[in-house]
Amino acid sequence: MINRLCIIGVGLIGGSLARSLKAAGACKEIVGTSRNLANLEKAQQLHVIDRFETDISVAVEGADIVVIATPIGSMDAIFKSLKGVLSPGMVLTDVGSTKGSVIEAATNVFGSCPDYFVPAHPIAGTEKSGVEASFNELFMDRRVILTPLEDTNPDAMAAVQSMWESTGAKVTTMDAGHHDEVLAATSHLPHVLAYSLVDTLSRMDEKTEIFNYAAGGFRDFTRIASSDPLMWHDICLSNSNAILKVLKKFSDDLSMLEQAVKDKDSKTLLDVFQRAKTARDTFSNE
Amino acid sequence: MINRLCIIGVGLIGGSLARSLKAAGACKEIVGTSRNLANLEKAQQLHVIDRFETDISVAVEGADIVVIATPIGSMDAIFKSLKGVLSPGMVLTDVGSTKGSVIEAATNVFGSCPDYFVPAHPIAGTEKSGVEASFNELFMDRRVILTPLEDTNPDAMAAVQSMWESTGAKVTTMDAGHHDEVLAATSHLPHVLAYSLVDTLSRMDEKTEIFNYAAGGFRDFTRIASSDPLMWHDICLSNSNAILKVLKKFSDDLSMLEQAVKDKDSKTLLDVFQRAKTARDTFSNE
Repeated sequence: MINRLCIIGVGLIGGSLARSLKAAGACKEIVGTSRNLANLEKAQQLHVIDRFETDISVAVEGADIVVIATPIGSMDAIFKSLKGVLSPGMVLTDVGSTKGSVIEAATNVFGSCPDYFVPAHPIAGTEKSGVEASFNELFMDRRVILTPLEDTNPDAMAAVQSMWESTGAKVTTMDAGHHDEVLAATSHLPHVLAYSLVDTLSRMDEKTEIFNYAAGGFRDFTRIASSDPLMWHDICLSNSNAILKVLKKFSDDLSMLEQAVKDKDSKTLLDVFQRAKTARDTFSNE
Repeated sequence: MINRLCIIGVGLIGGSLARSLKAAGACKEIVGTSRNLANLEKAQQLHVIDRFETDISVAVEGADIVVIATPIGSMDAIFKSLKGVLSPGMVLTDVGSTKGSVIEAATNVFGSCPDYFVPAHPIAGTEKSGVEASFNELFMDRRVILTPLEDTNPDAMAAVQSMWESTGAKVTTMDAGHHDEVLAATSHLPHVLAYSLVDTLSRMDEKTEIFNYAAGGFRDFTRIASSDPLMWHDICLSNSNAILKVLKKFSDDLSMLEQAVKDKDSKTLLDVFQRAKTARDTFSNE
């Protein structure tokens, strides 16, 4: 049981974590903090948090666990505001979509990555943002990846793992660099492609008409292009190397497929489509 | 009321058309035909069709409307088998995802595009295929685009329009070339991208692991990669010019975005993502 949890940034992820810990009876008190007062008031009205503090150093007082749930780009500033205000025994964790950059920011601010800091990433979300979009079941049966360093405190690890398991999530551990490569492939690249496609089409002359004739396939394919632009801007900057690496692979393969369309190369087209269908069907049946 | 409808190819689209016309009481008798006997038997067992004939020239006997619902690549062969067997007054239509190539095939076989042939495309489907995947409501509130030629018979047009309206679809008319460009953008290109991405990832070393950590966004984004490979092979060959044109636009814009990630060009990233989100939100609210 967590006596007091402090959540920095009460949006879709922070809000859903708060809701699901409360629903599970896994936390006595939840304190929210943010630079956005209106958002904190909304979170309290919605009973997502018990109370809020606008001063981050007051907000963390007496907390067992402090969760940073702000966009990646603000991590540096958050770490700076936490320096010297956390008490011994407090556990610090985050929910950032990239892990190498978060560890780097913590290392820069604290001199070395604090042993009470457990870098974490819940693989869950929707294309919506804000506390109004948060809900109890967001993490149910989803994976949460912890990317501890060699000297991360085992008790801190256990506390963060236990917190996430209370939400119904399945917790696994991974090297931060590997995490960033896997997520670049399955999450960051698809977002870049979806944003890029919708932008391309929206700037074509036939704009209105094109979207008028779009069907369910297009709707699903482009849903992630409705995600928060700032969050994805931050992710692209934080994980640029891994994203560029898998984007290069994708672009090379796409050029090959483009050539196959030009050459009316039946075999290549069928091979690629069939391999992809087999992989997608296998994945979706798991 | 249609007295007798003949459907050539009783799969997802043909089967759903049959089901929904029956449910609407808009058709007295539905005859199926196909090169696949097992499929026809299955369609009859499921009561999707009233009866079937394996000989296409027998199947069309006495039909008011003949609907070709086979993959695009078989259109040429179907037209050849229909030449000389249709009686005066019969209406011929199709459901192909590309229209220029279908009109060209008809013109090649019949000498000129028959005035009783109404090229049509219901903008509906799922990633599944086969008569087992067909259902009543597939066309409800979906668009059906008719791409008639100058001398297409108005009575034939009216019959096809009325048939589709009975399924709950909204029927509109468009030039075939324009149809092919619009669909290349909203349907064909997204399918090519989804197939290509899943194939790229499935061939990366970390294959199993990558898919293990994929979340809902990836699932939606890649759903269309489970579509029928042969159908999409045919579409890529039939509409290659329009697909290559929009693919070029997309690739150029993606290279620009790649450069922005390399340069850590915040403004470009935010601009593209914000424009895309606005377009996607507008589209999805319509």
